[in-house]
Amino acid sequence: MINQQMTQLGENSSVIRELFEYGKKRKAEIGEDKVYDFSIGNPNVPCPQEITDIMLRLISETEAAALHGYTSAVGDNGTRQAIAAYMNEKYDIGVDFTDIYMTVGAAASLTISLRAITNPGEEVIVFTPYFPEYKVFIENAGAVCVEVPARAGDFQIDFEKLENAFSEKTAAIIVNSPNNPTGAMLTAETLDELAAFLKAKEVQYGKEIYLISDEPYRELVYDGVQLALPVKHYDNTIICYSYSKSLSLPGERIGYIMVSPKMAGRKKVFATICGAGRSLGFVCAPALMQLVVGQAQGLTSDISAYAENRAIIYNALTEYGFEAVKPDGAFYLFVKSPSGDGGEMSERAKQQELLLVPSDSFGMEGYVRISYCVSKKQIEDSLPAFRALAESYGL
Amino acid sequence: MINQQMTQLGENSSVIRELFEYGKKRKAEIGEDKVYDFSIGNPNVPCPQEITDIMLRLISETEAAALHGYTSAVGDNGTRQAIAAYMNEKYDIGVDFTDIYMTVGAAASLTISLRAITNPGEEVIVFTPYFPEYKVFIENAGAVCVEVPARAGDFQIDFEKLENAFSEKTAAIIVNSPNNPTGAMLTAETLDELAAFLKAKEVQYGKEIYLISDEPYRELVYDGVQLALPVKHYDNTIICYSYSKSLSLPGERIGYIMVSPKMAGRKKVFATICGAGRSLGFVCAPALMQLVVGQAQGLTSDISAYAENRAIIYNALTEYGFEAVKPDGAFYLFVKSPSGDGGEMSERAKQQELLLVPSDSFGMEGYVRISYCVSKKQIEDSLPAFRALAESYGL
Repeated sequence: MINQQMTQLGENSSVIRELFEYGKKRKAEIGEDKVYDFSIGNPNVPCPQEITDIMLRLISETEAAALHGYTSAVGDNGTRQAIAAYMNEKYDIGVDFTDIYMTVGAAASLTISLRAITNPGEEVIVFTPYFPEYKVFIENAGAVCVEVPARAGDFQIDFEKLENAFSEKTAAIIVNSPNNPTGAMLTAETLDELAAFLKAKEVQYGKEIYLISDEPYRELVYDGVQLALPVKHYDNTIICYSYSKSLSLPGERIGYIMVSPKMAGRKKVFATICGAGRSLGFVCAPALMQLVVGQAQGLTSDISAYAENRAIIYNALTEYGFEAVKPDGAFYLFVKSPSGDGGEMSERAKQQELLLVPSDSFGMEGYVRISYCVSKKQIEDSLPAFRALAESYGL
Repeated sequence: MINQQMTQLGENSSVIRELFEYGKKRKAEIGEDKVYDFSIGNPNVPCPQEITDIMLRLISETEAAALHGYTSAVGDNGTRQAIAAYMNEKYDIGVDFTDIYMTVGAAASLTISLRAITNPGEEVIVFTPYFPEYKVFIENAGAVCVEVPARAGDFQIDFEKLENAFSEKTAAIIVNSPNNPTGAMLTAETLDELAAFLKAKEVQYGKEIYLISDEPYRELVYDGVQLALPVKHYDNTIICYSYSKSLSLPGERIGYIMVSPKMAGRKKVFATICGAGRSLGFVCAPALMQLVVGQAQGLTSDISAYAENRAIIYNALTEYGFEAVKPDGAFYLFVKSPSGDGGEMSERAKQQELLLVPSDSFGMEGYVRISYCVSKKQIEDSLPAFRALAESYGL
């Protein structure tokens, strides 16, 4: 008998994907430029030209059997050394390349890390709103996803609610800053308080509590805001990184897991990550792309394009009367539904050919998510539709 | 607390990897060309020039954001259509492109398929000798690996032993033809008998029994031997394929799962595979490589190089007095230990600087595996060492 839980996961595709498919159908009906699809986080800005040049050079100049052969399971040493050097120069964290495990993107980073640091029946805390696949990945490890609402207004951590949700079964907490879907970032003060909280819990329960920091949007920060890096605040941190967003390579599936150099028993944890990768069927990360990112540390796609999009859409929507938190990073705008119902707003927006994701898919009611990693033209063209949507609410 | 089972998997690397690491150290000590490493299956023959050309053309001529963007989770439709067309032309199996799910290589194909068609506690049968990661992947799904010895001499299925091992808990059987580590192939007669056996078991237990056909060596067949394709013999077959060996792209992690077009409830099984992929963290297979293999159906690396290696090493070793089954496919030679102990032979071979994998890592005593996907020069240079090894046994 096939596995019913997996059938369900396969048949109930996410609301985001459903909207995306609706959009494709609708575009075929009324024209590509008449539908304003803000549903998915597929970067519109291309990878830097340097990335294309590196790929062409590697493929032209490297002996093919070596270039496309297996790297070791943990990844290419040169690439790991380049990442360690970059992270140490930029964040001064004293990481060694042996703390880095190359992965097939962010999803793999998360499933491997979760499998490594949890046991069946243990709990992992996420803060709502959150990327919905966290729950799927936590359950893949046999663990339980415990949702804790973020603080209203600024999406920082509500420590009273965290205290109430924490139990002797809690193995780990996931943070995601800049955040999908809100674009909010955790402040250094929040991370300090979180570190103190977790250290106290480690003493109370006599075990390590791990902080998983999912950082695909780390490089996408605006207005010169300083990113507070979780691993600088708490030693038992595992970074899950992906180049999907920062280098606009989402389809190439390349990222890494980094264990804090100050983690208790880091060698053991690293070996456990290797074991989890092996168990899940991740043999090595794509070899060509490993070499590419090894030569591309510090590069990003043209983030100014997202900054410009952010300014246009945030200014317009607030002018029309919508309420939204101005995002510090990522490429999402989280907008309050005037009716208090995100699903209702998403449906109503369709009448204006606007595709907005209702926030209940992120574990929180009352908002929609606008993914603004689209062309500037799409944003500009969509503004009359947003104005009409505002007017339909009497704003 | 970290997951002890995963720690163990991470710390106890395979014997193959240990030998490989030993070889690297030894080469540093006495010279690259003085150590004859036959331990791993990393193809020495490069990918066809056409593959390199396709990569360069795609990267030069395709808009980067589209080229490196997410494909849908199941894979690029054009690539899936190309694969279906090729499989139908070559094997006449009537497969539709919607039966194909692109994966991050063979390991992913297996972990996803196993997760989809088993439930925790169920059993999956493998035939010894077998690729040791099967057990790891089966256990990742929460299932139990049941080993059944292949028939002595020709490595076909021993149906009496299969009957004894089969139970109401059996969910699936894995076959691997051409086989790693023996190079043996299952005959059409064996597959017919297996199909009859499984159909009878389906009636007896009132449920589907799945056949997983792991086919990374499908294109590596010698002497014009006709491959018997399991899916032609049994309807409830899932093909797990990878381009690692046939196109010499092991590091690029690209392959697929194909559900038999005649499978009972194939749409449901396919949805379950999608769910399992999602759960394990496989979001989409590497996008560039999906497009590359979509344009490379029917291409293979220069297999004549392996055929030549096979002839040289098989002829020499049997001349020296070793016993080995002449392999029909893949690039492995399975050699009987004159002492009856594969581990002893592997250790003794090290004295001649020969690195051979003992067969107990494959669930069978008494043999070593020689991986001959190396340069012809390495094979020729190693022959005196093999002769000395034979002489040390008094052969």
